[in-house]
Amino acid sequence: MSEPTRGRHEVPLEQNDLSVKRLSTDIEAIASFSESPPDVGYSRPTFSAPWRQAYDYVIEQATEIGAEHVVDAAGNLHIRHPLVGWERRVWLSGSHLDSVPSGGKFDGVSGVVIPLEIMRRRPELPLEIIVFAEEEGTTFNLGMLGSRLWAGTLKPDTMTRIRNLHGQTAAEAGAPHGLDLARLAAADAAAGAPAAAATAAATAAAATSGTGPAADWRTRLQPERYYGMVEVHPEQGLGLWDSGAPLAAVNRINGRRQLSITVTGQANHAGSTGMPGRRDALAGAAEMVLAFEKLGQELDRRLPYTVLTVGRLEATPGAVNVIPGKVVFSLDFRGQQEDLLVEGEQRIQEIAQAISERRGLKLEIETIEQLTPSPLSEDICTRLQQAASARGLELRLVPSGALHDAAVIAHVLPTAMIFVASRDGISHNPAEYSRIEDIALAAQLLEDMIVAGEEDAR
Amino acid sequence: MSEPTRGRHEVPLEQNDLSVKRLSTDIEAIASFSESPPDVGYSRPTFSAPWRQAYDYVIEQATEIGAEHVVDAAGNLHIRHPLVGWERRVWLSGSHLDSVPSGGKFDGVSGVVIPLEIMRRRPELPLEIIVFAEEEGTTFNLGMLGSRLWAGTLKPDTMTRIRNLHGQTAAEAGAPHGLDLARLAAADAAAGAPAAAATAAATAAAATSGTGPAADWRTRLQPERYYGMVEVHPEQGLGLWDSGAPLAAVNRINGRRQLSITVTGQANHAGSTGMPGRRDALAGAAEMVLAFEKLGQELDRRLPYTVLTVGRLEATPGAVNVIPGKVVFSLDFRGQQEDLLVEGEQRIQEIAQAISERRGLKLEIETIEQLTPSPLSEDICTRLQQAASARGLELRLVPSGALHDAAVIAHVLPTAMIFVASRDGISHNPAEYSRIEDIALAAQLLEDMIVAGEEDAR
Repeated sequence: MSEPTRGRHEVPLEQNDLSVKRLSTDIEAIASFSESPPDVGYSRPTFSAPWRQAYDYVIEQATEIGAEHVVDAAGNLHIRHPLVGWERRVWLSGSHLDSVPSGGKFDGVSGVVIPLEIMRRRPELPLEIIVFAEEEGTTFNLGMLGSRLWAGTLKPDTMTRIRNLHGQTAAEAGAPHGLDLARLAAADAAAGAPAAAATAAATAAAATSGTGPAADWRTRLQPERYYGMVEVHPEQGLGLWDSGAPLAAVNRINGRRQLSITVTGQANHAGSTGMPGRRDALAGAAEMVLAFEKLGQELDRRLPYTVLTVGRLEATPGAVNVIPGKVVFSLDFRGQQEDLLVEGEQRIQEIAQAISERRGLKLEIETIEQLTPSPLSEDICTRLQQAASARGLELRLVPSGALHDAAVIAHVLPTAMIFVASRDGISHNPAEYSRIEDIALAAQLLEDMIVAGEEDAR
Repeated sequence: MSEPTRGRHEVPLEQNDLSVKRLSTDIEAIASFSESPPDVGYSRPTFSAPWRQAYDYVIEQATEIGAEHVVDAAGNLHIRHPLVGWERRVWLSGSHLDSVPSGGKFDGVSGVVIPLEIMRRRPELPLEIIVFAEEEGTTFNLGMLGSRLWAGTLKPDTMTRIRNLHGQTAAEAGAPHGLDLARLAAADAAAGAPAAAATAAATAAAATSGTGPAADWRTRLQPERYYGMVEVHPEQGLGLWDSGAPLAAVNRINGRRQLSITVTGQANHAGSTGMPGRRDALAGAAEMVLAFEKLGQELDRRLPYTVLTVGRLEATPGAVNVIPGKVVFSLDFRGQQEDLLVEGEQRIQEIAQAISERRGLKLEIETIEQLTPSPLSEDICTRLQQAASARGLELRLVPSGALHDAAVIAHVLPTAMIFVASRDGISHNPAEYSRIEDIALAAQLLEDMIVAGEEDAR
């Protein structure tokens, strides 16, 4: 990277020391609410007791500076200051407080405490803080529930089917925290369309039409209330940390294919079945895992941020002395461009087919999820770059490999993200770390961008 | 294979039709005792109710022809006919009635019903039937318990530590079926040595010295009571079926190494961690699985019946969107010659080391089991070949890739095995199948061998 980014500690930050201290206090306070001890990691399943404590901490901090809060029908927390009021058009900024099991301190949390700190410093700025009720997807095996329900891209009754580790449905677990499926369903009915349609067009239509009596902004996102949204988040990758850049603007969220691949061979005795006669499902799956890794590397050289991952693999019967007869494994495939995803999925099929045929294995491939890439707002990215430039910082444009609530909101509202450098790219891990100075710098840039917007409007 | 073996249906068998019918009835009767329905497979965990029903069926069949039975302190069943009595030196033949979960009809069972049928036909022949109390190892995660306790190569108190799926120790589960740890421990004490020593020398010493008052033959195998042992068993491999041979004599049981290999990388976000920065434990493990398969194929070309198998593999955290940080997998490695096993284990270490180093992974290899190959009795193999030859059948000598009770007994007593062809080599599977005519032929050859021994003695 070029030199400017390396000078980040010399960037003059207004009230920098105090902000660094308060942001740090907020992050540590929220980290203290966890189901697991710090050495094991930070665990705040959605709607759990420590999740609620984190929620209450943010409400308490907002109340201390005189701000008001509202929980919408999806359980998302909204905070505005009375100097702005609930009627003005504002910028939306926030993230989530739930975590993966044994996760890190910064994921989600940094994106919540940054707008909180801006509101402390400049309560008169047009800003609404949002805490999305659920993002990670590990509590109920389905993610981004809060943003999707509010944006109208998830059927409310889905919440009555998905369950947490304790067997509670999301509907049951969320009810004490403001989740109100009846109001959400009424909003869907008023919009006159099933909310499950996940295309951008349908989403925008549902959201826009949700202005009738049944759907006020406490039930359904009303785009006209906002200039746009900016979510700040750790990068969760190596790009920024390795290049020495503290921040980047995110102009695209990668699309994702998730496949489930089943390879069936012949279970047999490991001692008496000779090497030549085998139809070993695990050896076949291992060959695919390696071929997919190679494909990922090749596609990444063509278009950076392309990734292929086999995260889960189960071999049965799974006995030390039996040749595996069946292997089921997952394949997660992400990229910036839809045509690359389509081509890659085709290549995946061909590779798996060729290996299966050569080894006499049966192959089944099921597509679990197909999400197209989400382009983010060029306008907001430009505003962020201008704010950075004014402070002598070059803000690179990068795509996001991970999904975020911003990907949901982007279909309804102009949306962008700021990435904060993650040490060694480590995330979903207690070792996750971002510099507090970089987090404070992100707060500064976002504040600068909002201020610049106000000045332009005058 | 040469022509003679293809003519097996023309081999004249004495009382062939009746024997085929009785053997078939026995196998079907025992198959009806199962924890699972036939389409799922045959399941007789050791000391379970269906296992006991199978045991009682054999006792009942023996009683019908006037034979007597004794259960030894290890829970093994011994049957002799009064025309022979308990004092004469005899041939020992038998196998086991326990099965793997969802196993086949023939594994173990065929080796029990064959000497039963010989005793029906020729009750005056010097023969003792044995049913080993436990062989498969799937009930208590440790195998060949009956033969090892009787031979004195397993510490009796091991039985108080290993547990079945219901949480019962082997000691508790076996007590109602004759398992008597106090008598076994007394035999060890009388032998003056801890019985855990697994070398052939120690075993032989323990067995031979077990002639004091504490250790009669009902407690510890007394080699002088037997000419030798022949265990008949399905081959569980493709060799015989593919070549058209109904039977083979087994002159060696492969040695076995079992390793547990742990590969540790870095768990990270599957979407935001680029391909170049990854330390993917599963991709590393997959490369090892393929390299071990290739090594197995290479070693098998040098010395047939060498096999390498990865049967169990667990990737953690095992989430679709997380790069696996850790993989633990098993490696089962068998071969005919100890020096090949030593060389192979060295190669395994080198291969795993090189892959781990190149990928920046941490490697741990633990050796779980080291069993040297067991040579079987050349004399008994020759006797079996002579008996076959007299009926126009060429009996090939093959090694056994699988372990059997015969491998335990071989260290104490001259021992050999007869393999019966397994259709498509399938075993530990409800599709396991051997021709009933081949099973009847094995009974005929074993009977012929015993008769020939009697004639030689006259």
